[in-house]
Amino acid sequence: MPVNAIIIYCNILNTVVYTFSFGFVLYSYYLLQMSNSRKVVKLFYDIISPYSWLAFEVLCRYRNVWNIDLKFKPAFLGGVFRGSGNQEPGLVQNKFSYMVTDLKQLSELFGVPVNPPLPCKKGTLNVMRFVTAVAEKEEERGVLVERVSRELWKNIWSTHQDITHPASLTEAGLKAGLSPHEVEELLILSKSQQIKDKLKSVTQEALDYQSFGLPFIVCHVNGKAEVFFGSDRFELMAHRIGEKWVGPHPVKTLSENVITAPPYASE
Amino acid sequence: MPVNAIIIYCNILNTVVYTFSFGFVLYSYYLLQMSNSRKVVKLFYDIISPYSWLAFEVLCRYRNVWNIDLKFKPAFLGGVFRGSGNQEPGLVQNKFSYMVTDLKQLSELFGVPVNPPLPCKKGTLNVMRFVTAVAEKEEERGVLVERVSRELWKNIWSTHQDITHPASLTEAGLKAGLSPHEVEELLILSKSQQIKDKLKSVTQEALDYQSFGLPFIVCHVNGKAEVFFGSDRFELMAHRIGEKWVGPHPVKTLSENVITAPPYASE
Repeated sequence: MPVNAIIIYCNILNTVVYTFSFGFVLYSYYLLQMSNSRKVVKLFYDIISPYSWLAFEVLCRYRNVWNIDLKFKPAFLGGVFRGSGNQEPGLVQNKFSYMVTDLKQLSELFGVPVNPPLPCKKGTLNVMRFVTAVAEKEEERGVLVERVSRELWKNIWSTHQDITHPASLTEAGLKAGLSPHEVEELLILSKSQQIKDKLKSVTQEALDYQSFGLPFIVCHVNGKAEVFFGSDRFELMAHRIGEKWVGPHPVKTLSENVITAPPYASE
Repeated sequence: MPVNAIIIYCNILNTVVYTFSFGFVLYSYYLLQMSNSRKVVKLFYDIISPYSWLAFEVLCRYRNVWNIDLKFKPAFLGGVFRGSGNQEPGLVQNKFSYMVTDLKQLSELFGVPVNPPLPCKKGTLNVMRFVTAVAEKEEERGVLVERVSRELWKNIWSTHQDITHPASLTEAGLKAGLSPHEVEELLILSKSQQIKDKLKSVTQEALDYQSFGLPFIVCHVNGKAEVFFGSDRFELMAHRIGEKWVGPHPVKTLSENVITAPPYASE
């Protein structure tokens, strides 16, 4: 091979390598920008709250539709009530009856199997300590706490178990994919001072955002926190974070829109 | 003209007249069926309630989009609270702060100029008696009560007037298109026992539907009453009455959809 050809070959090789490297740097920068531009959305919830379940499932669905980074914040509703001086809803008879019907109807519309009324009146302090332990322990943050929370909601709101019983926590943990050994470890961890303090601090964090009940959603937009209470402010929340609300079943609705769009053309 | 020709001419004329008459009967029957099939939607509201204003404007917009027969039901919020044993919202500091922000944001999203906080703490008994008098007096039911209610909401929630003062009621009446004489008559009528009893009975009607606050919306579907509290259940309500929720600006949204539909075709 003549020297000139070798030089040309090396030059081409260099150009290709440089181009790829430059492309890689650009792509990494793009990914970094994308992750930076994702809006952090914190969901404060307690398993005792059925409206929290509705909000949880809707946000899980929109996590893949909106440009948001969803953070789960297991908190203690009793502590939020005490800290804000608020009362339990449902103490007024008419309001309680309304909530039962409202939950049944929303459950059908949202496709979340909430099945009121609540079977037991016990608090969820131990339950939320268990969820906090899961959130603290897991390495890939958010995956296990999501699964465990969902199973616990099913236990209390669908199959009406006494979720304050350790057997119910174990069942939820196993269904969520944990091993019996891991569940055992988490049950022990959930009784530690570290976890008790963690649940207290997350509950206090909600109170610092001026929460008075759960679910409580905090969106960080342009360096400012905006808060939304309940499971009925998603349309407003979408508007505030620059996203679009298309109902409680975003993937289904969006694909339906794509399918139904062509007929407009022939009109 | 030969006799035969006259007979034929008369026969044609008869046929035309019969056809038109038959068509007219059919069309009248269709209109009757349409009006029968329209779902009655009752809105119980008090001018003191800003969330009632949001619900009122949204329902006024959807009245021309959904197949509903909207009935205005001016009621007394104080009576609903007393009768149901419920407390005023906003007694909890965090909840009050939330409501102020929530109202500002919803006001922008809904395009209704609610401008919190409420400037005066006086009750609206006289105001709601005036609105009740308008509702009772007017022949074309619903037109004037809508206009008067809107003007009163503007007075209390946009320009922060003391609407318990008769001058504020007069101003709202005049702006709504009543003559000074009519306003005078209605102010006198609003103090009558008949009107006091009417407001009481409408408030009791809301309580009979198990209301615990306002706005309270009652939809009559297939002979059954379904109730919705607040200004955040329109998506659910639409689902229950077989209509579609397209956000707080239906006409704008629907026309936008028609405009934006064609680009899908070229994809």
